[in-house]
Amino acid sequence: MKKKQIKEHLIKNIVIIGAGNVGYHLIDKFFRKGIPICQVYSRSKTKTNRIEKKFSLDTVNRLGEVTSSADLYIVAVKDDAIPVVAKKLSKAIGKNKLVAHTSGSVPVTVFKPFFKKYGVFYPLQTLSTERKVSFDRIPVCVDSNSEKNLKKLMRLAKKISKNVHHINDEQRAVLHVAAVFVSNFTNYMYTIGESILSAENLSFELLRPLILETAKKIKTGSPKQMQTGPAIRGDRKTIEKQLLYLEKYPDYQMLYDMITKEIQK
Amino acid sequence: MKKKQIKEHLIKNIVIIGAGNVGYHLIDKFFRKGIPICQVYSRSKTKTNRIEKKFSLDTVNRLGEVTSSADLYIVAVKDDAIPVVAKKLSKAIGKNKLVAHTSGSVPVTVFKPFFKKYGVFYPLQTLSTERKVSFDRIPVCVDSNSEKNLKKLMRLAKKISKNVHHINDEQRAVLHVAAVFVSNFTNYMYTIGESILSAENLSFELLRPLILETAKKIKTGSPKQMQTGPAIRGDRKTIEKQLLYLEKYPDYQMLYDMITKEIQK
Repeated sequence: MKKKQIKEHLIKNIVIIGAGNVGYHLIDKFFRKGIPICQVYSRSKTKTNRIEKKFSLDTVNRLGEVTSSADLYIVAVKDDAIPVVAKKLSKAIGKNKLVAHTSGSVPVTVFKPFFKKYGVFYPLQTLSTERKVSFDRIPVCVDSNSEKNLKKLMRLAKKISKNVHHINDEQRAVLHVAAVFVSNFTNYMYTIGESILSAENLSFELLRPLILETAKKIKTGSPKQMQTGPAIRGDRKTIEKQLLYLEKYPDYQMLYDMITKEIQK
Repeated sequence: MKKKQIKEHLIKNIVIIGAGNVGYHLIDKFFRKGIPICQVYSRSKTKTNRIEKKFSLDTVNRLGEVTSSADLYIVAVKDDAIPVVAKKLSKAIGKNKLVAHTSGSVPVTVFKPFFKKYGVFYPLQTLSTERKVSFDRIPVCVDSNSEKNLKKLMRLAKKISKNVHHINDEQRAVLHVAAVFVSNFTNYMYTIGESILSAENLSFELLRPLILETAKKIKTGSPKQMQTGPAIRGDRKTIEKQLLYLEKYPDYQMLYDMITKEIQK
């Protein structure tokens, strides 16, 4: 009896739908962990060629050709494309297969019209195909419409990461908003730094060590306690001088003023 | 002749004025590199006790007691305190000593009323006494009112960092503005992420890997090219959903809206 239970939670064969940044990294990680991928779909031949060359995996460029012999289908396509892809996929493989998407903001129920068993397999990270990342510590947020399939997906996630969490739709949406602030908006702060320096022919290299250390500083601590700079010091002279300098960049000046006031609240 | 020139550029004995975050790290780095520090001043006895214990250095708590036997006095105090400290210091050691401050936004000429030889020794980094940093790659921005003393300071800086630059007042002010964006404001983005998650009882741990990877991603590339997220994708659905969620945080909502629009420009 116990043996049977464990067996039930084993995913033996995966199809990855989509070979963009997230799809590519999942393929790479499953492949290196020896987790069998039986097929990869991407409508882009460039991408499937790359996958074939690198991992010697079977690939297809049409959803109608996706095999129905897998235990799990991971849909790693753009948010808007998920319902369209799900519909086509259910025609190819039937309604009884377990399907999961990798999105931060799409509810798990997106699959309800097309499948009986579905879930989410969302790696909370900024992934670029060109950049290797150590998956072991990436939080993988898992959800499903059934306890049994949740367990299956958790088990799979734990094979590629030590940081696996059951996160429901609402929590995942909140995480995604927070991720936009700490990653997308932070990267935009870097872009402002770069643009200010380049206007004065100063190299962005000068800021790289600072950027890295700012992130490393909160590896353990709370960012609130790590806040430094003129705003938190209440250094009005410096703030006024910097606002004056930013006159030539009205947008940056407005942002500077707003964030400074926020920090001081 | 050549030998004499080299000798002239050697700083043999340093006094550090101030044992806050910057002062402490300079002491630590000079000490470990075997660069002689003859005295440390801090008005705080807690701080001088700590320095005495850790580095067995001579310390004083009054500026009037600072020795006049050093070649260089590094003033690592708060921006506003620099002129006050400089005035008292000149009374103790005379006008003929080389003095440098460590500030990003104070002009080198702050010393002009009190000293004949002066400069800047500005490590562009976010330093906390509690956190060890590898100084080797920290940009040290050096300036002086004379070519000879500029060389002296550059030579000293090169002993503790591989990343030494001659940066004038205007450039340093620009660097400091850029540093506020990429470090202080970035840290504030982390704080927003933390505050949003904690309101929903989600652990900030979930964001740490993302934060670190976002910084690491631009170790080589340009942040402009690394921009990801709903704003740059033009993913209106997600943006609207997230703005709606942020209704309960009007300040964050305003910032979200503003930065999103900036990214899309």
